[in-house]
Amino acid sequence: MIPRLYVTGDLAASAQVEGADIHYLRNVLRLPEGAEVELFNGRDGGWRGRIASLTKKAATITVEHQVAAQTTLPDLMLMFTPLKKTRIDFLVEKATELGVSTLWPVFTDHAITDRVNERRLTEIAREAAEQSRRLSVPDVRAAAKLRDCLELLEKEGRRLFVADETGGGVPARTAFAAAPSGPVAILVGPEGGFSPGELDLVRRLDIVTAIDLGPRILRAETAAIAALACFQALRGDWT
Amino acid sequence: MIPRLYVTGDLAASAQVEGADIHYLRNVLRLPEGAEVELFNGRDGGWRGRIASLTKKAATITVEHQVAAQTTLPDLMLMFTPLKKTRIDFLVEKATELGVSTLWPVFTDHAITDRVNERRLTEIAREAAEQSRRLSVPDVRAAAKLRDCLELLEKEGRRLFVADETGGGVPARTAFAAAPSGPVAILVGPEGGFSPGELDLVRRLDIVTAIDLGPRILRAETAAIAALACFQALRGDWT
Repeated sequence: MIPRLYVTGDLAASAQVEGADIHYLRNVLRLPEGAEVELFNGRDGGWRGRIASLTKKAATITVEHQVAAQTTLPDLMLMFTPLKKTRIDFLVEKATELGVSTLWPVFTDHAITDRVNERRLTEIAREAAEQSRRLSVPDVRAAAKLRDCLELLEKEGRRLFVADETGGGVPARTAFAAAPSGPVAILVGPEGGFSPGELDLVRRLDIVTAIDLGPRILRAETAAIAALACFQALRGDWT
Repeated sequence: MIPRLYVTGDLAASAQVEGADIHYLRNVLRLPEGAEVELFNGRDGGWRGRIASLTKKAATITVEHQVAAQTTLPDLMLMFTPLKKTRIDFLVEKATELGVSTLWPVFTDHAITDRVNERRLTEIAREAAEQSRRLSVPDVRAAAKLRDCLELLEKEGRRLFVADETGGGVPARTAFAAAPSGPVAILVGPEGGFSPGELDLVRRLDIVTAIDLGPRILRAETAAIAALACFQALRGDWT
Protein backbone atom coordinates (compact mmCIF):
# COMPACT_ATOMS: atom_id res chain seq x y z
CA MET A 1 0.00 0.00 0.00
CA ILE A 2 1.54 3.31 -1.10
CA PRO A 3 1.34 5.94 1.65
CA ARG A 4 -0.93 8.88 0.90
CA LEU A 5 0.08 12.40 1.86
CA TYR A 6 -1.77 15.69 1.93
CA VAL A 7 0.32 18.63 0.77
CA THR A 8 -0.52 22.27 0.21
CA GLY A 9 1.58 22.97 -2.89
CA ASP A 10 0.38 22.69 -6.48
CA LEU A 11 0.56 19.23 -8.02
CA ALA A 12 1.73 18.91 -11.63
CA ALA A 13 4.17 16.65 -13.47
CA SER A 14 7.79 17.28 -12.35
CA ALA A 15 6.76 19.79 -9.67
CA GLN A 16 8.60 19.69 -6.36
CA VAL A 17 6.44 19.90 -3.25
CA GLU A 18 7.37 20.45 0.36
CA GLY A 19 5.37 20.66 3.57
CA ALA A 20 4.56 16.96 4.06
CA ASP A 21 4.64 15.74 7.66
CA ILE A 22 8.34 15.03 8.19
CA HIS A 23 7.89 13.18 11.48
CA TYR A 24 5.32 10.90 9.87
CA LEU A 25 7.52 10.14 6.85
CA ARG A 26 10.72 9.55 8.83
CA ASN A 27 9.63 8.05 12.13
CA VAL A 28 6.27 6.45 11.50
CA LEU A 29 6.52 5.22 7.91
CA ARG A 30 10.39 5.13 7.97
CA LEU A 31 10.49 5.88 4.29
CA PRO A 32 13.84 6.06 2.46
CA GLU A 33 14.61 8.66 -0.17
CA GLY A 34 13.25 7.43 -3.51
CA ALA A 35 10.16 5.87 -1.89
CA GLU A 36 6.90 6.18 -3.77
CA VAL A 37 4.02 8.18 -2.28
CA GLU A 38 0.59 9.37 -3.38
CA LEU A 39 -0.18 13.07 -3.08
CA PHE A 40 -3.33 15.21 -2.94
CA ASN A 41 -4.03 18.82 -2.11
CA GLY A 42 -7.80 19.13 -2.47
CA ARG A 43 -7.52 20.83 -5.89
CA ASP A 44 -5.41 18.86 -8.36
CA GLY A 45 -6.54 15.25 -7.93
CA GLY A 46 -4.29 12.37 -6.86
CA TRP A 47 -0.67 12.16 -7.99
CA ARG A 48 2.12 9.64 -7.70
CA GLY A 49 5.39 11.08 -6.44
CA ARG A 50 8.77 10.10 -5.04
CA ILE A 51 10.68 11.37 -2.03
CA ALA A 52 13.56 13.39 -3.46
CA SER A 53 15.14 14.27 -0.13
CA LEU A 54 14.20 13.73 3.48
CA THR A 55 16.06 15.25 6.40
CA LYS A 56 15.06 16.21 9.93
CA LYS A 57 14.22 19.68 8.65
CA ALA A 58 12.73 19.25 5.20
CA ALA A 59 10.97 16.79 2.94
CA THR A 60 10.97 17.36 -0.80
CA ILE A 61 8.82 15.22 -3.04
CA THR A 62 8.99 15.11 -6.82
CA VAL A 63 5.57 14.84 -8.44
CA GLU A 64 5.37 12.27 -11.24
CA HIS A 65 2.01 11.48 -12.84
CA GLN A 66 -1.67 11.90 -12.02
CA VAL A 67 -3.54 8.82 -10.83
CA ALA A 68 -6.99 10.31 -10.05
CA ALA A 69 -8.93 13.34 -11.21
CA GLN A 70 -10.13 15.72 -8.50
CA THR A 71 -13.66 14.99 -7.36
CA THR A 72 -15.96 17.26 -5.40
CA LEU A 73 -17.69 15.92 -2.32
CA PRO A 74 -21.29 16.81 -1.53
CA ASP A 75 -21.38 20.10 0.44
CA LEU A 76 -22.03 18.46 3.81
CA MET A 77 -21.17 20.27 7.03
CA LEU A 78 -21.13 18.77 10.50
CA MET A 79 -21.75 21.12 13.42
CA PHE A 80 -20.98 19.71 16.85
CA THR A 81 -20.38 20.96 20.36
CA PRO A 82 -16.92 20.38 21.85
CA LEU A 83 -16.55 16.99 23.55
CA LYS A 84 -13.89 15.42 25.71
CA LYS A 85 -10.64 14.74 23.91
CA THR A 86 -10.96 11.08 22.92
CA ARG A 87 -14.52 11.53 21.77
CA ILE A 88 -13.97 14.68 19.73
CA ASP A 89 -10.94 13.08 18.05
CA PHE A 90 -13.00 10.06 17.17
CA LEU A 91 -15.82 12.24 15.87
CA VAL A 92 -13.50 14.19 13.57
CA GLU A 93 -11.82 11.03 12.28
CA LYS A 94 -15.12 9.27 11.54
CA ALA A 95 -16.79 12.35 10.02
CA THR A 96 -13.81 12.71 7.68
CA GLU A 97 -14.04 9.05 6.63
CA LEU A 98 -17.75 9.56 6.01
CA GLY A 99 -17.08 12.45 3.65
CA VAL A 100 -17.91 15.73 5.41
CA SER A 101 -16.65 18.80 3.65
CA THR A 102 -16.71 21.12 6.69
CA LEU A 103 -16.42 20.60 10.45
CA TRP A 104 -17.71 23.42 12.63
CA PRO A 105 -17.42 23.32 16.44
CA VAL A 106 -20.27 25.31 17.99
CA PHE A 107 -20.76 26.54 21.53
CA THR A 108 -24.18 25.86 23.00
CA ASP A 109 -25.70 26.77 26.36
CA HIS A 110 -24.87 23.36 27.86
CA ALA A 111 -21.40 23.04 26.32
CA ILE A 112 -18.87 21.36 28.61
CA THR A 113 -16.02 23.60 27.51
CA ASP A 114 -15.44 26.94 25.79
CA ARG A 115 -12.14 25.91 24.23
CA VAL A 116 -11.47 24.04 21.01
CA ASN A 117 -8.10 23.32 19.44
CA GLU A 118 -8.99 23.71 15.77
CA ARG A 119 -5.40 23.04 14.70
CA ARG A 120 -5.38 19.64 16.41
CA LEU A 121 -8.73 18.76 14.87
CA THR A 122 -7.37 19.71 11.44
CA GLU A 123 -4.41 17.36 11.97
CA ILE A 124 -6.76 14.50 12.83
CA ALA A 125 -8.90 15.28 9.80
CA ARG A 126 -5.80 15.34 7.58
CA GLU A 127 -4.68 11.90 8.77
CA ALA A 128 -8.15 10.46 8.32
CA ALA A 129 -8.35 11.97 4.82
CA GLU A 130 -5.03 10.36 3.90
CA GLN A 131 -6.11 6.95 5.18
CA SER A 132 -9.63 6.97 3.76
CA ARG A 133 -8.33 7.87 0.26
CA ARG A 134 -10.08 11.20 0.15
CA LEU A 135 -8.71 13.81 -2.25
CA SER A 136 -9.39 16.65 0.17
CA VAL A 137 -9.18 17.48 3.87
CA PRO A 138 -12.34 18.83 5.48
CA ASP A 139 -12.25 22.46 6.41
CA VAL A 140 -12.32 23.01 10.19
CA ARG A 141 -13.98 26.34 10.91
CA ALA A 142 -13.14 28.44 13.96
CA ALA A 143 -15.50 27.59 16.80
CA ALA A 144 -18.41 30.01 17.15
CA LYS A 145 -21.59 30.50 19.12
CA LEU A 146 -24.65 28.61 17.93
CA ARG A 147 -26.69 31.77 17.38
CA ASP A 148 -23.99 33.26 15.15
CA CYS A 149 -23.64 30.00 13.21
CA LEU A 150 -27.36 29.85 12.57
CA GLU A 151 -27.38 33.38 11.14
CA LEU A 152 -24.66 32.45 8.69
CA LEU A 153 -26.43 29.26 7.67
CA GLU A 154 -29.59 31.23 6.94
CA LYS A 155 -27.64 33.63 4.74
CA GLU A 156 -26.09 30.68 2.87
CA GLY A 157 -29.51 29.05 2.40
CA ARG A 158 -28.04 25.89 3.89
CA ARG A 159 -30.56 23.23 4.95
CA LEU A 160 -29.91 22.29 8.61
CA PHE A 161 -30.81 18.89 10.07
CA VAL A 162 -30.85 19.03 13.86
CA ALA A 163 -30.62 15.80 15.87
CA ASP A 164 -33.55 16.25 18.25
CA GLU A 165 -33.54 14.03 21.34
CA THR A 166 -36.83 15.38 22.62
CA GLY A 167 -38.77 13.10 20.28
CA GLY A 168 -40.27 15.76 18.01
CA GLY A 169 -38.19 15.05 14.92
CA VAL A 170 -38.91 13.50 11.54
CA PRO A 171 -37.39 9.99 11.08
CA ALA A 172 -33.92 10.39 9.59
CA ARG A 173 -34.87 8.26 6.59
CA THR A 174 -37.81 10.47 5.68
CA ALA A 175 -35.97 13.72 6.33
CA PHE A 176 -32.87 12.84 4.32
CA ALA A 177 -34.75 11.22 1.45
CA ALA A 178 -36.71 14.47 1.05
CA ALA A 179 -33.69 16.76 1.39
CA PRO A 180 -33.35 19.30 -1.41
CA SER A 181 -30.10 19.35 -3.35
CA GLY A 182 -27.68 22.05 -2.28
CA PRO A 183 -25.61 22.70 0.83
CA VAL A 184 -26.53 20.77 3.95
CA ALA A 185 -25.49 20.85 7.60
CA ILE A 186 -26.11 18.36 10.40
CA LEU A 187 -26.13 19.74 13.96
CA VAL A 188 -25.63 17.55 17.00
CA GLY A 189 -26.03 19.00 20.49
CA PRO A 190 -24.03 18.48 23.67
CA GLU A 191 -24.47 15.52 26.03
CA GLY A 192 -26.81 17.62 28.14
CA GLY A 193 -28.97 18.46 25.12
CA PHE A 194 -29.94 21.86 23.79
CA SER A 195 -31.37 24.43 26.18
CA PRO A 196 -35.09 25.26 25.86
CA GLY A 197 -34.12 28.64 24.37
CA GLU A 198 -31.95 26.99 21.75
CA LEU A 199 -34.65 24.50 20.83
CA ASP A 200 -37.16 27.33 20.42
CA LEU A 201 -34.74 29.30 18.28
CA VAL A 202 -33.82 26.35 16.08
CA ARG A 203 -37.40 25.25 15.56
CA ARG A 204 -38.48 28.68 14.36
CA LEU A 205 -36.00 28.71 11.48
CA ASP A 206 -37.23 27.82 8.00
CA ILE A 207 -33.92 26.17 7.13
CA VAL A 208 -34.26 23.64 9.97
CA THR A 209 -35.57 20.07 9.90
CA ALA A 210 -35.51 18.35 13.30
CA ILE A 211 -34.60 14.67 12.84
CA ASP A 212 -35.14 11.63 15.00
CA LEU A 213 -32.35 9.09 15.43
CA GLY A 214 -34.29 6.29 17.04
CA PRO A 215 -35.49 5.27 20.48
CA ARG A 216 -32.17 5.07 22.32
CA ILE A 217 -30.14 7.92 23.81
CA LEU A 218 -27.07 8.31 21.61
CA ARG A 219 -23.88 9.97 22.74
CA ALA A 220 -23.11 13.10 20.77
CA GLU A 221 -20.43 11.49 18.62
CA THR A 222 -22.61 8.46 17.93
CA ALA A 223 -25.47 10.69 16.81
CA ALA A 224 -23.12 12.59 14.49
CA ILE A 225 -21.62 9.48 12.90
CA ALA A 226 -25.01 7.79 12.55
CA ALA A 227 -26.62 10.85 10.97
CA LEU A 228 -23.74 11.32 8.52
CA ALA A 229 -23.85 7.66 7.47
CA CYS A 230 -27.62 7.82 6.88
CA PHE A 231 -27.31 11.05 4.93
CA GLN A 232 -24.63 9.63 2.67
CA ALA A 233 -26.61 6.43 2.13
CA LEU A 234 -29.83 8.27 1.28
CA ARG A 235 -28.86 11.53 -0.34
CA GLY A 236 -25.07 11.71 -0.50
CA ASP A 237 -22.37 9.93 -2.46
CA TRP A 238 -23.05 6.33 -1.44
CA THR A 239 -25.70 5.85 -4.05
CA MET B 1 -30.99 12.09 35.91
CA ILE B 2 -31.58 8.86 37.83
CA PRO B 3 -28.72 6.37 37.32
CA ARG B 4 -29.62 3.23 35.39
CA LEU B 5 -28.26 -0.14 36.44
CA TYR B 6 -28.27 -3.54 34.79
CA VAL B 7 -28.86 -6.38 37.25
CA THR B 8 -29.31 -10.09 36.74
CA GLY B 9 -31.95 -10.81 39.40
CA ASP B 10 -35.69 -10.83 38.81
CA LEU B 11 -37.44 -7.46 39.05
CA ALA B 12 -40.81 -7.28 40.79
CA ALA B 13 -42.36 -4.96 43.37
CA SER B 14 -40.63 -5.25 46.78
CA ALA B 15 -37.97 -7.66 45.47
CA GLN B 16 -34.41 -7.23 46.69
CA VAL B 17 -31.69 -7.42 44.05
CA GLU B 18 -27.96 -7.69 44.38
CA GLY B 19 -25.12 -7.84 41.88
CA ALA B 20 -25.04 -4.20 40.76
CA ASP B 21 -21.57 -2.77 40.13
CA ILE B 22 -20.47 -1.75 43.65
CA HIS B 23 -17.45 0.25 42.51
CA TYR B 24 -19.63 2.24 40.11
CA LEU B 25 -22.28 2.98 42.75
CA ARG B 26 -19.83 3.92 45.51
CA ASN B 27 -16.89 5.51 43.78
CA VAL B 28 -18.17 6.84 40.48
CA LEU B 29 -21.74 7.86 41.27
CA ARG B 30 -21.05 8.23 45.04
CA LEU B 31 -24.62 7.29 45.84
CA PRO B 32 -25.82 7.24 49.46
CA GLU B 33 -28.10 4.57 50.85
CA GLY B 34 -31.69 5.49 50.01
CA ALA B 35 -30.71 6.90 46.59
CA GLU B 36 -33.10 6.24 43.73
CA VAL B 37 -31.98 4.12 40.77
CA GLU B 38 -33.54 2.61 37.66
CA LEU B 39 -33.10 -1.11 37.08
CA PHE B 40 -33.36 -3.46 34.10
CA ASN B 41 -32.40 -7.07 33.50
CA GLY B 42 -33.37 -7.67 29.85
CA ARG B 43 -36.56 -9.54 30.84
CA ASP B 44 -38.77 -7.57 33.21
CA GLY B 45 -38.78 -4.01 31.80
CA GLY B 46 -37.55 -0.92 33.65
CA TRP B 47 -38.10 -0.53 37.39
CA ARG B 48 -37.52 2.21 39.93
CA GLY B 49 -35.63 1.10 43.02
CA ARG B 50 -33.76 2.41 46.04
CA ILE B 51 -30.40 1.45 47.48
CA ALA B 52 -31.18 -0.42 50.69
CA SER B 53 -27.57 -0.98 51.72
CA LEU B 54 -24.22 -0.30 50.11
CA THR B 55 -20.93 -1.49 51.55
CA LYS B 56 -17.56 -2.33 50.02
CA LYS B 57 -18.71 -5.91 49.62
CA ALA B 58 -22.38 -5.80 48.75
CA ALA B 59 -25.08 -3.60 47.24
CA THR B 60 -28.72 -4.39 47.94
CA ILE B 61 -31.43 -2.57 46.07
CA THR B 62 -35.13 -2.67 46.88
CA VAL B 63 -37.30 -2.75 43.77
CA GLU B 64 -40.27 -0.36 43.92
CA HIS B 65 -42.46 0.07 40.83
CA GLN B 66 -42.24 -0.57 37.08
CA VAL B 67 -41.59 2.43 34.85
CA ALA B 68 -41.30 0.74 31.42
CA ALA B 69 -42.56 -2.49 29.90
CA GLN B 70 -39.93 -4.78 28.40
CA THR B 71 -39.44 -4.23 24.69
CA THR B 72 -37.76 -6.55 22.23
CA LEU B 73 -35.11 -5.15 19.91
CA PRO B 74 -34.87 -6.24 16.26
CA ASP B 75 -32.72 -9.42 16.03
CA LEU B 76 -29.64 -7.63 14.71
CA MET B 77 -26.20 -9.19 15.10
CA LEU B 78 -22.88 -7.48 14.45
CA MET B 79 -19.95 -9.71 13.46
CA PHE B 80 -16.55 -8.05 13.55
CA THR B 81 -12.91 -9.04 13.62
CA PRO B 82 -10.91 -8.14 16.72
CA LEU B 83 -9.41 -4.63 16.59
CA LYS B 84 -6.94 -2.76 18.73
CA LYS B 85 -8.20 -1.97 22.21
CA THR B 86 -9.49 1.59 21.83
CA ARG B 87 -11.20 0.84 18.55
CA ILE B 88 -12.89 -2.38 19.64
CA ASP B 89 -14.13 -0.68 22.82
CA PHE B 90 -15.55 2.15 20.77
CA LEU B 91 -17.16 -0.29 18.35
CA VAL B 92 -18.88 -2.22 21.15
CA GLU B 93 -20.10 0.99 22.83
CA LYS B 94 -21.51 2.44 19.62
CA ALA B 95 -23.06 -0.82 18.43
CA THR B 96 -24.83 -1.10 21.78
CA GLU B 97 -26.15 2.45 21.51
CA LEU B 98 -27.36 1.65 18.01
CA GLY B 99 -29.36 -1.31 19.25
CA VAL B 100 -27.55 -4.54 18.32
CA SER B 101 -28.87 -7.61 20.06
CA THR B 102 -25.71 -9.74 19.60
CA LEU B 103 -22.02 -8.98 19.19
CA TRP B 104 -19.89 -11.76 17.72
CA PRO B 105 -16.10 -11.43 17.33
CA VAL B 106 -14.93 -13.52 14.39
CA PHE B 107 -11.45 -14.57 13.35
CA THR B 108 -10.63 -14.04 9.70
CA ASP B 109 -7.51 -14.87 7.69
CA HIS B 110 -6.15 -11.33 8.03
CA ALA B 111 -7.08 -10.85 11.69
CA ILE B 112 -4.51 -8.87 13.68
CA THR B 113 -4.97 -10.97 16.80
CA ASP B 114 -6.33 -14.35 17.87
CA ARG B 115 -7.37 -13.18 21.33
CA VAL B 116 -10.55 -11.45 22.44
CA ASN B 117 -11.57 -10.59 25.98
CA GLU B 118 -15.31 -11.24 25.76
CA ARG B 119 -15.79 -10.40 29.44
CA ARG B 120 -14.36 -6.90 28.96
CA LEU B 121 -16.50 -6.35 25.88
CA THR B 122 -19.56 -7.40 27.88
CA GLU B 123 -18.70 -4.83 30.55
CA ILE B 124 -18.47 -2.09 27.93
CA ALA B 125 -21.76 -3.20 26.39
CA ARG B 126 -23.40 -3.15 29.83
CA GLU B 127 -22.27 0.42 30.53
CA ALA B 128 -23.41 1.58 27.10
CA ALA B 129 -26.77 -0.16 27.60
CA GLU B 130 -27.23 1.64 30.93
CA GLN B 131 -26.40 5.02 29.44
CA SER B 132 -28.38 4.67 26.23
CA ARG B 133 -31.53 3.67 28.17
CA ARG B 134 -31.72 0.22 26.67
CA LEU B 135 -33.68 -2.42 28.60
CA SER B 136 -31.21 -5.17 27.68
CA VAL B 137 -27.48 -5.75 27.29
CA PRO B 138 -26.33 -7.22 23.97
CA ASP B 139 -25.15 -10.79 24.12
CA VAL B 140 -21.41 -11.10 23.42
CA ARG B 141 -20.75 -14.51 21.87
CA ALA B 142 -17.47 -16.36 22.28
CA ALA B 143 -15.14 -15.52 19.41
CA ALA B 144 -15.12 -18.11 16.64
CA LYS B 145 -13.68 -18.72 13.19
CA LEU B 146 -15.51 -17.11 10.28
CA ARG B 147 -16.18 -20.44 8.56
CA ASP B 148 -17.80 -21.86 11.69
CA CYS B 149 -19.86 -18.70 12.18
CA LEU B 150 -21.17 -18.85 8.62
CA GLU B 151 -22.31 -22.44 9.07
CA LEU B 152 -24.33 -21.48 12.12
CA LEU B 153 -25.86 -18.47 10.36
CA GLU B 154 -26.98 -20.70 7.51
CA LYS B 155 -28.65 -23.08 9.96
CA GLU B 156 -30.41 -20.14 11.62
CA GLY B 157 -31.57 -18.79 8.25
CA ARG B 158 -30.07 -15.44 9.24
CA ARG B 159 -29.64 -12.91 6.42
CA LEU B 160 -26.01 -11.71 6.36
CA PHE B 161 -24.94 -8.32 5.01
CA VAL B 162 -21.22 -8.23 4.33
CA ALA B 163 -19.42 -4.89 4.01
CA ASP B 164 -17.56 -5.40 0.74
CA GLU B 165 -14.67 -3.01 0.09
CA THR B 166 -13.89 -4.50 -3.30
CA GLY B 167 -16.68 -2.52 -4.93
CA GLY B 168 -18.98 -5.37 -5.86
CA GLY B 169 -21.69 -4.70 -3.30
CA VAL B 170 -25.25 -3.41 -3.52
CA PRO B 171 -25.68 0.16 -2.16
CA ALA B 172 -26.53 -0.08 1.55
CA ARG B 173 -29.77 1.80 1.01
CA THR B 174 -31.03 -0.66 -1.59
CA ALA B 175 -29.87 -3.74 0.30
CA PHE B 176 -31.36 -2.75 3.64
CA ALA B 177 -34.63 -1.45 2.20
CA ALA B 178 -35.13 -4.84 0.52
CA ALA B 179 -34.11 -6.89 3.58
CA PRO B 180 -36.62 -9.57 4.55
CA SER B 181 -37.97 -9.50 8.07
CA GLY B 182 -36.33 -11.96 10.43
CA PRO B 183 -32.88 -12.29 11.97
CA VAL B 184 -30.10 -10.24 10.41
CA ALA B 185 -26.33 -10.03 10.80
CA ILE B 186 -23.86 -7.45 9.55
CA LEU B 187 -20.26 -8.60 9.00
CA VAL B 188 -17.33 -6.21 8.81
CA GLY B 189 -13.88 -7.47 7.90
CA PRO B 190 -10.46 -6.64 9.30
CA GLU B 191 -8.39 -3.59 8.29
CA GLY B 192 -6.59 -5.73 5.72
CA GLY B 193 -9.87 -6.88 4.18
CA PHE B 194 -11.11 -10.42 3.66
CA SER B 195 -8.82 -12.94 1.98
CA PRO B 196 -9.73 -14.06 -1.57
CA GLY B 197 -10.78 -17.44 -0.17
CA GLU B 198 -13.10 -15.80 2.35
CA LEU B 199 -14.63 -13.57 -0.30
CA ASP B 200 -15.28 -16.58 -2.53
CA LEU B 201 -16.83 -18.49 0.35
CA VAL B 202 -19.03 -15.61 1.46
CA ARG B 203 -20.25 -14.79 -2.05
CA ARG B 204 -21.36 -18.37 -2.68
CA LEU B 205 -23.78 -18.38 0.25
CA ASP B 206 -27.47 -17.77 -0.41
CA ILE B 207 -27.86 -15.95 2.91
CA VAL B 208 -25.31 -13.28 1.93
CA THR B 209 -25.84 -9.83 0.43
CA ALA B 210 -22.60 -7.92 -0.20
CA ILE B 211 -23.16 -4.21 0.56
CA ASP B 212 -21.33 -1.09 -0.53
CA LEU B 213 -20.62 1.66 2.01
CA GLY B 214 -19.56 4.41 -0.35
CA PRO B 215 -16.46 5.55 -2.21
CA ARG B 216 -14.10 6.08 0.72
CA ILE B 217 -12.09 3.47 2.63
CA LEU B 218 -13.69 3.17 6.06
CA ARG B 219 -11.93 1.80 9.09
CA ALA B 220 -13.52 -1.39 10.37
CA GLU B 221 -15.27 0.28 13.31
CA THR B 222 -16.54 3.11 11.09
CA ALA B 223 -17.97 0.62 8.61
CA ALA B 224 -19.72 -1.24 11.42
CA ILE B 225 -21.25 1.87 13.01
CA ALA B 226 -22.29 3.28 9.63
CA ALA B 227 -23.90 0.04 8.50
CA LEU B 228 -25.79 -0.37 11.79
CA ALA B 229 -27.09 3.20 11.64
CA CYS B 230 -28.29 2.74 8.06
CA PHE B 231 -29.94 -0.56 8.89
CA GLN B 232 -31.82 0.92 11.85
CA ALA B 233 -32.90 3.93 9.80
CA LEU B 234 -34.15 1.83 6.89
CA ARG B 235 -35.35 -1.46 8.33
CA GLY B 236 -34.83 -1.36 12.07
CA ASP B 237 -36.43 0.46 14.96
CA TRP B 238 -35.79 4.08 13.92
CA THR B 239 -38.86 4.23 11.76
